[in-house]
Amino acid sequence: MTSNDTTAARAADDLTAGGWALPAGAVGTHRFTPKFEAVIAGLQARLTALGGTEGPVWHPPVLSRSLIDRAEYAESFPHLLGSVNAMEEDADGVVLAPAACYPVYTGLADGTVEEQAHFDVAGYCYRHEATSELGRFRSFRMREFVTVGADEPVTAWRDGWIERAGKLFAELGVAVDIVSATDPFFGPGGRFMRASQLEQDLKFEFVAKVSPEDPGTAIASANCHKDHLGARFAVRLPGGDTAHSACAAFGLERIALALINAHGDDLNDWPALAAALPTPGSPA
Amino acid sequence: MTSNDTTAARAADDLTAGGWALPAGAVGTHRFTPKFEAVIAGLQARLTALGGTEGPVWHPPVLSRSLIDRAEYAESFPHLLGSVNAMEEDADGVVLAPAACYPVYTGLADGTVEEQAHFDVAGYCYRHEATSELGRFRSFRMREFVTVGADEPVTAWRDGWIERAGKLFAELGVAVDIVSATDPFFGPGGRFMRASQLEQDLKFEFVAKVSPEDPGTAIASANCHKDHLGARFAVRLPGGDTAHSACAAFGLERIALALINAHGDDLNDWPALAAALPTPGSPA
Repeated sequence: MTSNDTTAARAADDLTAGGWALPAGAVGTHRFTPKFEAVIAGLQARLTALGGTEGPVWHPPVLSRSLIDRAEYAESFPHLLGSVNAMEEDADGVVLAPAACYPVYTGLADGTVEEQAHFDVAGYCYRHEATSELGRFRSFRMREFVTVGADEPVTAWRDGWIERAGKLFAELGVAVDIVSATDPFFGPGGRFMRASQLEQDLKFEFVAKVSPEDPGTAIASANCHKDHLGARFAVRLPGGDTAHSACAAFGLERIALALINAHGDDLNDWPALAAALPTPGSPA
Repeated sequence: MTSNDTTAARAADDLTAGGWALPAGAVGTHRFTPKFEAVIAGLQARLTALGGTEGPVWHPPVLSRSLIDRAEYAESFPHLLGSVNAMEEDADGVVLAPAACYPVYTGLADGTVEEQAHFDVAGYCYRHEATSELGRFRSFRMREFVTVGADEPVTAWRDGWIERAGKLFAELGVAVDIVSATDPFFGPGGRFMRASQLEQDLKFEFVAKVSPEDPGTAIASANCHKDHLGARFAVRLPGGDTAHSACAAFGLERIALALINAHGDDLNDWPALAAALPTPGSPA
């Protein structure tokens, strides 16, 4: 084991000792206890209130290969994509969803967005991460708010979520750094190079400690995609321009880990606003 | 399209018209709305009460290949298994979980069960089904109660679940046939042939209509595994005998479909005990 692996194993053991999780046997996966799931359920309810929605639409953990190809995901993140193989393949195979939002774009593809559209979605995601420190989940749940429309209102919506998410983490007692980030999202040959992305402040990440030794992990992000996905899925604005999109994405297990790291294993010790999160016996 | 495909498409369209689901783009998958998820959350809470637990441990949608190999799953159901491939494989790859319970056995493997052990688990499952009629999900959630111990108390536990599940479906106004079933579970070369399984009443299925044209779909089952999994995972009883196991498994989406088929699209029309299920705004 490398030193990183040792740290990862100790952090996972701590999670088990605290009654939050059990080993699941595969790299980057955990089994989560009702105690952990109550926190997740509370987070979901808080995000529903924050988004002013009825709750998320749940997307399946698998997507059609043609959808993810159209999004050009594999061109940007070939190493992270999990493809599903079965003995008898369909003409269009499936892949594991790398993010919760993709089916939103299928629903809009080759059409016109008459007015700014809003979506609230959730789902299990899979990313074939190379390292296994705690929080580097291969399998995890993402809650994602998405908007599609014209450039300026889309950017304003993204900015609103940066503010709301910042307030949420402050209320929950989770210290975050809000950092401008780059994203290979636009592909190695994309029009947006690293410096340009930073200059344009396209992506912001909320970075928090998910374990004592953690130098910082992105637990949420708010991200303008420009017209990247609009172009891939041929989504137009009424005037004929390509639609822009943005998302506010919340890594549910990572946020739970950041809460546990901040407040400890005993829910009675959590500060009031964070302790109000778990809803004991809540279905997850 | 075949006649079956046409029926499947119409049934899926009805589900969309009723506000329960949206197309997801891949065979046997759906996107589920908050209205549908409220029913799922209510079912989960009712099953938690029925099982007298704190709620399920959530298992990840992927399992290590070595776990599923030890269970000899692929020998019985080679066509249903989804294997995950990534650009850079680990020594031990992953597969999509075909049932929620498998990590339970990893936790017990090569050990002794001192007294009858009980588990309450849930998770997303994947089965690469060849047909696509409504309810023939490739991706779905399973809630599973599992016991491991000696033959007789394990069988008695299974019989208790047949009774409890029967009462639950009666309360929910879902007409079910309880039928003795066979299962290729024990493998093509298994010790339990079809006639023997039926004679021994190892598996019972709760069969209900999940759509108007449905001749009947298994929405739950209660299943004695004899010592099949105990032997695979070397789980022993204190005297040295191989442990027996049984499960009571609930297909959450299928049960929701059976409720919708029985009571319609308007929750106000549902009979009281079924209408008490959905918890509006409940996080799912």
